[in-house]
Amino acid sequence: MMSLRTGRRARQAPDTSTPPRSHAYRQMRHPFEPQRVFSDDAIANMHQMALRALSELGMKILLPEARKLFGGAGALVDDSSQMVRIGPELVAAALATAPSSIRLRAPNPEREQWFEPGAMLFSAGAGCPNTIDAVRGRQAGCLQTFEETLKLVQSFDAIHILGPSAEPQDVPPHLRHYAMMQAQLSISDKPTFIYARGKKQISQSLEMIALGHGLSDDELRNGSWSYSIINTNSPRQIDVPMAEGIIEMARAGQMTIITPFCLAGAMAPITVAGALVLQHAEALAAITLSQLTAPGAPVTYGGFASNVDMKSGSPAFGTPSHMKLTIGSGQLARHIGLPWRSAAGSASNTSDAQGAGENHMGLWAALQANATLTVHSAGWLEGGLSFGYEKFINDMEAVQQLAEMAMPTPEDQASLGWDALADVDPGGHFFATQHTMDRYRDAFYAPVVADLSNHGAWVEAGSQTSTERAVDVWQGILRDFAPPPSAAGMADRLKAFVDEGTKAGGAPPTEG
Amino acid sequence: MMSLRTGRRARQAPDTSTPPRSHAYRQMRHPFEPQRVFSDDAIANMHQMALRALSELGMKILLPEARKLFGGAGALVDDSSQMVRIGPELVAAALATAPSSIRLRAPNPEREQWFEPGAMLFSAGAGCPNTIDAVRGRQAGCLQTFEETLKLVQSFDAIHILGPSAEPQDVPPHLRHYAMMQAQLSISDKPTFIYARGKKQISQSLEMIALGHGLSDDELRNGSWSYSIINTNSPRQIDVPMAEGIIEMARAGQMTIITPFCLAGAMAPITVAGALVLQHAEALAAITLSQLTAPGAPVTYGGFASNVDMKSGSPAFGTPSHMKLTIGSGQLARHIGLPWRSAAGSASNTSDAQGAGENHMGLWAALQANATLTVHSAGWLEGGLSFGYEKFINDMEAVQQLAEMAMPTPEDQASLGWDALADVDPGGHFFATQHTMDRYRDAFYAPVVADLSNHGAWVEAGSQTSTERAVDVWQGILRDFAPPPSAAGMADRLKAFVDEGTKAGGAPPTEG
Repeated sequence: MMSLRTGRRARQAPDTSTPPRSHAYRQMRHPFEPQRVFSDDAIANMHQMALRALSELGMKILLPEARKLFGGAGALVDDSSQMVRIGPELVAAALATAPSSIRLRAPNPEREQWFEPGAMLFSAGAGCPNTIDAVRGRQAGCLQTFEETLKLVQSFDAIHILGPSAEPQDVPPHLRHYAMMQAQLSISDKPTFIYARGKKQISQSLEMIALGHGLSDDELRNGSWSYSIINTNSPRQIDVPMAEGIIEMARAGQMTIITPFCLAGAMAPITVAGALVLQHAEALAAITLSQLTAPGAPVTYGGFASNVDMKSGSPAFGTPSHMKLTIGSGQLARHIGLPWRSAAGSASNTSDAQGAGENHMGLWAALQANATLTVHSAGWLEGGLSFGYEKFINDMEAVQQLAEMAMPTPEDQASLGWDALADVDPGGHFFATQHTMDRYRDAFYAPVVADLSNHGAWVEAGSQTSTERAVDVWQGILRDFAPPPSAAGMADRLKAFVDEGTKAGGAPPTEG
Repeated sequence: MMSLRTGRRARQAPDTSTPPRSHAYRQMRHPFEPQRVFSDDAIANMHQMALRALSELGMKILLPEARKLFGGAGALVDDSSQMVRIGPELVAAALATAPSSIRLRAPNPEREQWFEPGAMLFSAGAGCPNTIDAVRGRQAGCLQTFEETLKLVQSFDAIHILGPSAEPQDVPPHLRHYAMMQAQLSISDKPTFIYARGKKQISQSLEMIALGHGLSDDELRNGSWSYSIINTNSPRQIDVPMAEGIIEMARAGQMTIITPFCLAGAMAPITVAGALVLQHAEALAAITLSQLTAPGAPVTYGGFASNVDMKSGSPAFGTPSHMKLTIGSGQLARHIGLPWRSAAGSASNTSDAQGAGENHMGLWAALQANATLTVHSAGWLEGGLSFGYEKFINDMEAVQQLAEMAMPTPEDQASLGWDALADVDPGGHFFATQHTMDRYRDAFYAPVVADLSNHGAWVEAGSQTSTERAVDVWQGILRDFAPPPSAAGMADRLKAFVDEGTKAGGAPPTEG
């Protein structure tokens, strides 16, 4: 017990060269074993019932080209009703060619991801027509707020891919994809998002990625440089732009994330099991279309299932049903062996305790479910009708804490800390032990917006809620924002293409 | 496919006899497999190092009677330094007699609990010297607020046992145990809490339980009708009242919950592993004292370990370190095979997004860790310096949602819902299918304070945060509160005892 005698005197100066804890949560792996809400038998039954639904009831597929692909492979197609009945052998063949691991490329190689089971990615609130912040209130999404939200997203490593955070409604629909791609490429070096709003928008967006990063056609197809979200029209329908999205992205070797939005009790059966059967059937149909288009095309399973609120009729998020649906989705994804996306998010109208709670429930359920990607992880208010700036900052605290928790926990002898134990007398403290001095700079997660000061200090500082404090945080991020090296000269590289495309009438989104 | 033809017409009227979803979350079991942050080898190493700490470094035990118990069993006792060195064989013998399952009795048999691995109990924020509510602000705890918080606790089935929610500081310390026990017995029918503030307070509290419920001495010892929390004075010290609590409760056959409060970087080593070694050593020492007093006495493992905030020096809660410490504690509890207590809670000064987030992290970590009991699950602000009324309501939403999630998920054929799937055309909805009509009343969790209305309706209703809405909720609960049947005539049954005890000078708390 040398340390008892000499410990306090022989102490060295702390190692000031250690940097404070980094928030570089880039390539993350799930820390937990996946959990179950259903027995394995029930999952197998749900898979079988989904296959039966596809083969006996069928899917309504609005795009003739997609029906032709199904028909050519042996599905029973009725063009008058647009119904396609898909046999289990077609689904099995698709699951056999769909890759279980997808290389998701990024302008910054440090942000590249393996999109595969076990990986843990997060993306921010997406698809929001409005924004809410404490300075400007609630307003329609515009290019400025789209760019601002991209800057916020770019500034947190724990958000791994971009998304349509706030819809730039001040840009006309036929030119919007130019603006959205230009903004992504000029502000961020993370994997990019492309809306499935017609073939031409997709192909032009891909051209912009190639131009922006100087990629040859082969390089653009070496892994996936972008992704698109494919929402089915539950129940049992795939509309024209979504089918075009599946086909065009598959042909270009780019990732689609299949996402039925199955609201139990509304567009899906009211039971957790029933809503999942429908989700599974729809996802399998879309995955099959992708693989019929191009075997081996990067496509992922997904779901965003929750329940309707029986009082208001609105979608609810972060509910017990949402959590069970998420964990069940993870079981179904593992059953077919594909990576998959989940979603968190909040129905709250503001960044309050309710909103925080709803998002935590979704995030934690996604951890239980080992979701490859959790969409709407930060900033999603009103069930997606608004992107909240203060909400984003508060949710990022949660996402970063989960990312930090996913980091390995040292368990070597030095970490067990015998010397520290022996160094401190009963009733004493560890503040000044060598064990503490060696580690204190890097030991703990440093909060973004949480305030741990005592009541007196907190009152003196204005009794601010974390939502009020978040205003300074996002304003500081926007004020200090510097684009990544990959964005240098981006506007010049894209200008001619965008100018010509604009002159030629842009690309109006596909209807129906 | 009869349903396709006849489904819409043949529909029956909904079954209005089904009651809406009940919130009777009484005897809960953990829904998830326990998770790990450490390898099994590391856990075994930590257990060994804790044993080594007890045997080589020892514990400072301030109560002579406790040292005598240790000494009598073969521990090395030095009365001048009050140090007790405890050999591994003593610990092993204690772990062999400590019960792994404890029957926790309640005046209402429906609230009885088996306190054992796999069970999932929650208790409210405890030990708070102050209360915070929107009407009265922050004030010192008093008998009125203690009684109010008991009424709130009694009103939620998902809070399974009572605790010292708000400290009644307006009652003199030597009489406070009378008031606290009278309040518990008169307001609630859940298992009761006894402070470890000296032998006389404990024995008198037990007498009041026996008087209040008409229990013979044998009946009082048939299972545990109460429990006490035993906090060690980390590092490596057990003070007089705590040692008296262990001994007195063990002799009376009542449950003690051993709870070292190991704040990593302050009263414990700064590493997760090191803090857990210290916690484990202290808990094993206290468990050993309990079993030396009365082999087979109900005693549970526990820990409440988090990290100090390096900026303010304050305890932090709901942090990544807190979560890892919780999950690691669960591993250690399983290693020794005992039920155990964890804790959630919040360091926030108010019921905001930060406070909600911190508590969610603690609650979810406790689920990952399969904690038998999670203390401070609702209402704990400022790291326990205040019990927040609005915080309690918002946290109860989370606790109830987790309880609801822990309920089994139907996976029978009817739940899979083939008929519903076949009943609804592509692009249609399930609102009016028989499958929905049969289930809608009971399908989903009904929120306590969450508001799922849309933005317009929310603004019209005053743009209230969930914390603002919670005021109405707790006021309504207090207004409508009715004591349980077991409380009828309670004051009469206790009066003589309390009057005599008061006249005789009460029972001043033990010092030191």
